[in-house]
Amino acid sequence: MTLGEIATPALILDLPAFEANLAAMRQACAARGVRLRAHGKAHKTPELARRQIADGGSAGICAQKVAEAEAFVRAGIDDVLVANEVVADGTIDRLARLSATARMAVCVDDATVVPRLGAAVRRHGGTLGVVVEIDVGAGRCGVSPGTPAADLAATVAAEPGLRFAGLQAYHGAAQHLRTPDERAAAIARAVDLVRQSLAALERRGIPCPDVTGAGTGTFTLEAASGVYTEVQAGSYAFMDADYARNTPAEDAPAFAHALFVLATVMSTAGSGRAVVDAGHKAASIDTGLPVVHGRPEIAYVGASDEHGVVTDPASTLRLGDRLLLIPGHCDPTFNLHDHVVAVREGRVEAVFAVAARGKGW
Amino acid sequence: MTLGEIATPALILDLPAFEANLAAMRQACAARGVRLRAHGKAHKTPELARRQIADGGSAGICAQKVAEAEAFVRAGIDDVLVANEVVADGTIDRLARLSATARMAVCVDDATVVPRLGAAVRRHGGTLGVVVEIDVGAGRCGVSPGTPAADLAATVAAEPGLRFAGLQAYHGAAQHLRTPDERAAAIARAVDLVRQSLAALERRGIPCPDVTGAGTGTFTLEAASGVYTEVQAGSYAFMDADYARNTPAEDAPAFAHALFVLATVMSTAGSGRAVVDAGHKAASIDTGLPVVHGRPEIAYVGASDEHGVVTDPASTLRLGDRLLLIPGHCDPTFNLHDHVVAVREGRVEAVFAVAARGKGW
Repeated sequence: MTLGEIATPALILDLPAFEANLAAMRQACAARGVRLRAHGKAHKTPELARRQIADGGSAGICAQKVAEAEAFVRAGIDDVLVANEVVADGTIDRLARLSATARMAVCVDDATVVPRLGAAVRRHGGTLGVVVEIDVGAGRCGVSPGTPAADLAATVAAEPGLRFAGLQAYHGAAQHLRTPDERAAAIARAVDLVRQSLAALERRGIPCPDVTGAGTGTFTLEAASGVYTEVQAGSYAFMDADYARNTPAEDAPAFAHALFVLATVMSTAGSGRAVVDAGHKAASIDTGLPVVHGRPEIAYVGASDEHGVVTDPASTLRLGDRLLLIPGHCDPTFNLHDHVVAVREGRVEAVFAVAARGKGW
Repeated sequence: MTLGEIATPALILDLPAFEANLAAMRQACAARGVRLRAHGKAHKTPELARRQIADGGSAGICAQKVAEAEAFVRAGIDDVLVANEVVADGTIDRLARLSATARMAVCVDDATVVPRLGAAVRRHGGTLGVVVEIDVGAGRCGVSPGTPAADLAATVAAEPGLRFAGLQAYHGAAQHLRTPDERAAAIARAVDLVRQSLAALERRGIPCPDVTGAGTGTFTLEAASGVYTEVQAGSYAFMDADYARNTPAEDAPAFAHALFVLATVMSTAGSGRAVVDAGHKAASIDTGLPVVHGRPEIAYVGASDEHGVVTDPASTLRLGDRLLLIPGHCDPTFNLHDHVVAVREGRVEAVFAVAARGKGW
């Protein structure tokens, strides 16, 4: 089957570009002496996680939700960090159940969760790594760096069934700062807050096995910091229109666009414009509109639920023509599709289930 | 099971509010002498379409995609208008296949599609209604009103296996103009363009069985126009934060919020804020952020993929507390969820499959 035969809109993975991105990230992390734990929230696709581990140098996988982790473990991935807080009784129980069969870890930012995690893990006979998340500037989850982080780590370390697995210091907003200088300044502050937390842990006599965090936009900075040991990047494997707006740092590897939404021209009735069959139910627009790949004369200028309006100043588009769209944001775009069609040189090689799609609980 | 026992984030339908919305729309259309054909793109849920037909006065259903129509027909709904253009060979074939078992119609805005539709329908032994879409101001699909519309209708009427089913004149953007005056002005222009098209059809001697269009924001205007015969509203059954920002017209029925995303407070570590477990993978933000229901002191101020940041100035929120969020936009929010949990007075009455979720081809 060729690209031209696929019903649209369809999520397309260019395998050579994906494989090149995996190789570039594997090399970049190896050269810098940090571990890669690729973030599965980006793709929610167990087969892609499996390839990141088998071929891409990833030591395991991050998930953002327990239901995502369940999908990955079910597919045979046996080392998962839920890089997020879990607070509901039912969700804690499901996480503890996973911890009896796979190497699991989770984040905390509240001491009251610790004994509940411990009780659940002991009930299921597993062990669970617990990472203390600190807020390094994202303004979202995470305790304050320094003493509060060390206090929470002490609570974790004292809880039977749990092991204190380190600190999570992820600065999501920094990934999308456009210039290398802005990103360097944000991560320098984050590194400083990590150091304060490590010092507080040392004062308490608590060894810190790992510092995990970083994303595609900044990971070379965290990797060079001397304090981060693990990189959680996810978008590097796919790239998107938003990441393409970053000016890359000089020492950062180049990642290629590997993820596309294939769309068909469904109307040329309007003058100077055409309409494609992919709107924001096919390509997420939370960070901006898709960009048309390889056709600089055509711009995607308006997304509604099921339609995309593209400019066509020279009226070159014909009904049924196909366009490859680079999504604005890869993670939520994967979350719109049940399958991703993997192609090599225009031919379909495989179709992968986005098995954790919608699994947000 | 109660609301408190549901794993979050979860899509929640308040059944009494949904039923009241159905009754209000049934009455409003009956009083104005127009047919309702509720738009299934809003919910993609066959059971809700079934209730709109059985209890809500809907004469059939609209779908926006053939794959959506397939899900509805499979569930027993036998009268579906694909209120959109279909151009790919494979999709035309699937539509023609449906037309052999259900009463189907589709839109066109290009004469070259007409013989292809005809050939496919004849191959499958069905008949297909074909609606000529005219652009009445949305700037998306649709031929120009007047003579071009009549010319296309003549092409349809001459094609064996197809019946010319009327005009579609849908002004999507007008639904979200905030004041009744702005909406009235937009629909007055649309009505004028419909009249021009009807006059052109009359000059060609082509009877026009229907004029279909309108949405929740403007349907009272189209219904009062004397030219529209069918209303395609969808959001009325659910409402969302965006529609709530419209100032309603005096004569429009009031619709209640019936759709929510149930979220759990997962972090209170930050000062003056809390974090809930529903970001834009759980509630679409294409028309703005969700609004917290029934808690005016708390504002949802930031959505990332899996997190929502809410203000909590008095620090009243506790870990595990639950909030009902009114989604910014109901249609794409349904499209994020595999199931919708139907509740009555806080108790779960049923769980419905959003069977056409993601079915965009």
